[in-house]
Amino acid sequence: MLGNMMDTQLLIIDLLRHARNRHPSQEVVSQRLEGDIHRSTYAQIWQRSNQLAHALHALEIKSGDCVATLAWNTHRHMELYYAVSGIGAVLHTVNPRLFSEQLEYIINHAEDQYVFVDLSFVELLEPLQDKLTSVKGFIVMTDRAHMPETSLAPLYCFEELLASQPTDYDWPRFDENSAAALCYTSGTTGNPKGVLYSHRAMVLHAQATASRELLDLNPDTVLLPMVAMYHAGAWGAPYAAPLAGCKLVLPGAGMDGASMSALINKEGVTVGLGVPTIWLTLHNYWAEQKLNNTTLQRVCVGGAASPLGMVKLYQERYGIYWQPIWGMTETGPLATSLPATPDIMALPLPERYQLQISAGRAAFGVEMALFDADDQRVCHDGEATGELRVRGPWISSQYYRNEDLSAFPDGWLATGDIAVIDPAGILRVVDRKKDVIKSGGEWISSLEIENIVSQHPSVNECSVIGARHPKWDERPVLVVVVNKGASVSHQDIVGFLDGKIARWWTPDQTIFVAELPRTGTGKVLKNELRERYGNVLA
Amino acid sequence: MLGNMMDTQLLIIDLLRHARNRHPSQEVVSQRLEGDIHRSTYAQIWQRSNQLAHALHALEIKSGDCVATLAWNTHRHMELYYAVSGIGAVLHTVNPRLFSEQLEYIINHAEDQYVFVDLSFVELLEPLQDKLTSVKGFIVMTDRAHMPETSLAPLYCFEELLASQPTDYDWPRFDENSAAALCYTSGTTGNPKGVLYSHRAMVLHAQATASRELLDLNPDTVLLPMVAMYHAGAWGAPYAAPLAGCKLVLPGAGMDGASMSALINKEGVTVGLGVPTIWLTLHNYWAEQKLNNTTLQRVCVGGAASPLGMVKLYQERYGIYWQPIWGMTETGPLATSLPATPDIMALPLPERYQLQISAGRAAFGVEMALFDADDQRVCHDGEATGELRVRGPWISSQYYRNEDLSAFPDGWLATGDIAVIDPAGILRVVDRKKDVIKSGGEWISSLEIENIVSQHPSVNECSVIGARHPKWDERPVLVVVVNKGASVSHQDIVGFLDGKIARWWTPDQTIFVAELPRTGTGKVLKNELRERYGNVLA
Repeated sequence: MLGNMMDTQLLIIDLLRHARNRHPSQEVVSQRLEGDIHRSTYAQIWQRSNQLAHALHALEIKSGDCVATLAWNTHRHMELYYAVSGIGAVLHTVNPRLFSEQLEYIINHAEDQYVFVDLSFVELLEPLQDKLTSVKGFIVMTDRAHMPETSLAPLYCFEELLASQPTDYDWPRFDENSAAALCYTSGTTGNPKGVLYSHRAMVLHAQATASRELLDLNPDTVLLPMVAMYHAGAWGAPYAAPLAGCKLVLPGAGMDGASMSALINKEGVTVGLGVPTIWLTLHNYWAEQKLNNTTLQRVCVGGAASPLGMVKLYQERYGIYWQPIWGMTETGPLATSLPATPDIMALPLPERYQLQISAGRAAFGVEMALFDADDQRVCHDGEATGELRVRGPWISSQYYRNEDLSAFPDGWLATGDIAVIDPAGILRVVDRKKDVIKSGGEWISSLEIENIVSQHPSVNECSVIGARHPKWDERPVLVVVVNKGASVSHQDIVGFLDGKIARWWTPDQTIFVAELPRTGTGKVLKNELRERYGNVLA
Repeated sequence: MLGNMMDTQLLIIDLLRHARNRHPSQEVVSQRLEGDIHRSTYAQIWQRSNQLAHALHALEIKSGDCVATLAWNTHRHMELYYAVSGIGAVLHTVNPRLFSEQLEYIINHAEDQYVFVDLSFVELLEPLQDKLTSVKGFIVMTDRAHMPETSLAPLYCFEELLASQPTDYDWPRFDENSAAALCYTSGTTGNPKGVLYSHRAMVLHAQATASRELLDLNPDTVLLPMVAMYHAGAWGAPYAAPLAGCKLVLPGAGMDGASMSALINKEGVTVGLGVPTIWLTLHNYWAEQKLNNTTLQRVCVGGAASPLGMVKLYQERYGIYWQPIWGMTETGPLATSLPATPDIMALPLPERYQLQISAGRAAFGVEMALFDADDQRVCHDGEATGELRVRGPWISSQYYRNEDLSAFPDGWLATGDIAVIDPAGILRVVDRKKDVIKSGGEWISSLEIENIVSQHPSVNECSVIGARHPKWDERPVLVVVVNKGASVSHQDIVGFLDGKIARWWTPDQTIFVAELPRTGTGKVLKNELRERYGNVLA
């Protein structure tokens, strides 16, 4: 027997509609690619999204069509988030940091009809355009005065397309399970795989994201997403911010320390979103410039493990709460976090820091379980390790146009993370499955060693990999970037680790480098480190 | 094209599961019918709900069956909320204040299979039992020691049914649109009409309810629902509290001022839910006993208009924020509110009070619109009045087993409230459609007059009705309950109203009474007042 309730569908456009109704004059501030700061409101974003919807129709973009963007975090990109999904088409946010063969592959795989492109990525597309089999045209996200010289054709100007369109649009209602957005994960092997988000998934994810269990957004929050809108939807910020009515500060292409710091001070940013590297970048800038924090209260940090050294530094030097997050493109992306609730803030600092390097607890809607190599459940006792699997309404059930379901056993998503979960539901990722070091038949957690080394006063950042070893199969090798002006030796670090980890976990060697190789999304490329240094002990 | 997301269904049982995982030791405190205070936790409620699910199977209750409760706000009732809906059956919360013919009608109309009954309602059922055509047995919600002498048969003891059952249960997964709970509205004319809630509606409603836009619940909240679990699901508190992890204080049958005051002080209640009358009762008790508020920070008030006098009194005498809510059984029930956000709290008090007697703004998910008598949209300009219609995923689309769709025009719910909505989305209910006073071809808002009269220092409560008038069709007549020990005349009140309303709105007569007639849910029965006093001017 079914209930007698309206079958109102959960659609992305209603998030922005809600902001227009409830928070019309709340600001959206963008660092534009043209160089200036652009100030807007949710009411204006709503109007322009309506105009954009008409413009998409004029381009004959239809329900189910894929539309690509190669763009930074700006108000125009946000308008595309709403207008493209709102008319029933699919927003394909392309990661411009992919190799050009990957760009070609994913645009063709998605059969993108048009590409909306920021000024800074026009040159990236030019050599590719002849290989893009489905693309009917390119729209440069700027006004007529800033249109570039380019071979891209047919070519359109974003602001011109909008200019003459009406500011109201009759948004269609359709099945909430319809595809809304597409994002490819930049795997380290094989072709990128597409995660196809539905409207339902994104609305439920936005509600969770705005809630106290994840980002805890409210109309007093000034949110700066330093995660790209071209990767995992800037962690859902463009959806959750209008829902919560918070002020949204979009950094454009300004991902360096100076730009970030200036924007934080100018706009009074209270909450930042970003990978650990971003906050290292900000710290390095502040330290060099002898600056301190003004308004930032929290940084919400995911995409890689939170190093204990950074957690401490942010608290003790800047008074900023480091809020860990766990998630991946396939999980919405946000799934777990450890918000600064009163019970957490009441803990003695050392205890609190230990929780801040965990991944926190699952939000309502996300179910987590650990499984061993035989697909059997592992106890959530805080000791036993297993592969983390997750289920929920904003978790992938398969990759787009991909018959390989090996990552989706029995209706779960197998995350590839080795983790423990304690009886209070706190998730701790021990390592990526492929990064675990197997030494003499036992596991060594690279993350745990990294957490300690990251606290050494001379260490800027570090990574631990398994190097092949004739006797022990693998042994840990440490790769370190030293702080500017500091110096440190392998023996210093071994001394620093002494007593903090089991002695047999001590890295056999330390390699000092100028920088760590990273993916476009800021993750350390451990497979590249293994290629370079995997034989140093052999 | 559909997204590639898991089709995880939104089911009520997952709200309690979440509390068990995330807030296992948070308390649920019940004032039991046996007279004592019962202390429990979400972990224990979870275990007992599992046992109860087994017990329901033992009674051969199946998916789709209706199960009735006649019960107060207790942990046992809460366990029924989860176990009955959790196994796929439908929880029919029966309002014991209905007339006995109505009780018979709704239990038979719902085809309830069993009735779970509190000690205090056993006698109510005895004379009815032979007329209940579908009921197979009665379960008294107590332990063996407290089982009553009764003619009800077959008779079961709640605690005995649970005692031997295992504490884990494999909850089924099913369509989120399945019926979960049933509540009949006690209309003033005709048979009661059933509102059949789905799992999806209740989960989305719980998320909205817990959010900052409605009740703003968090793990530090101590919530006292003084609204009955037998009526509109205690405004969803049994669902939203576990989701948010707040402490839940259930008052049992203790709806009087002394019980309420004792429970608030003992348990440190911070947020109360209830109709205006409940807060008048509490104030009357505190005033008589010369007591003051200790821990209460907010009262969330719906079910009837918020009188300005009460709003002021609660703020100025007790320091309690009066948070208005609008909703009805057919709307989940919560749809709009005015939470104490920083911008509201920054307003000068007189301005703030004017907003606190509005109904606030719609939560995400609820769409509101005003329509005139010709079904045309009325402008949301804060001036134009129209009938309020609402849409959304937790709004009724029809009544249970009822072909009359006149309340559901064009996919909206017509609420029967005459209202204005201002450009900022603030809803003000002017009157119930049937309570509006039509005088000389123009409308008079009874609510507006009541709001002013309620502030007179000698007035305890009041109501304004339209009385038949030979010349003007209708004229307002005021019905007043005077404060203990105070005295006031019609002329005093006319003087008090002078300059605060249009002169032609002034009531022609004041009738002084000892109490106002009310429905079981605390609403003033204006039709009864009209029957009694509708001809005083004729």
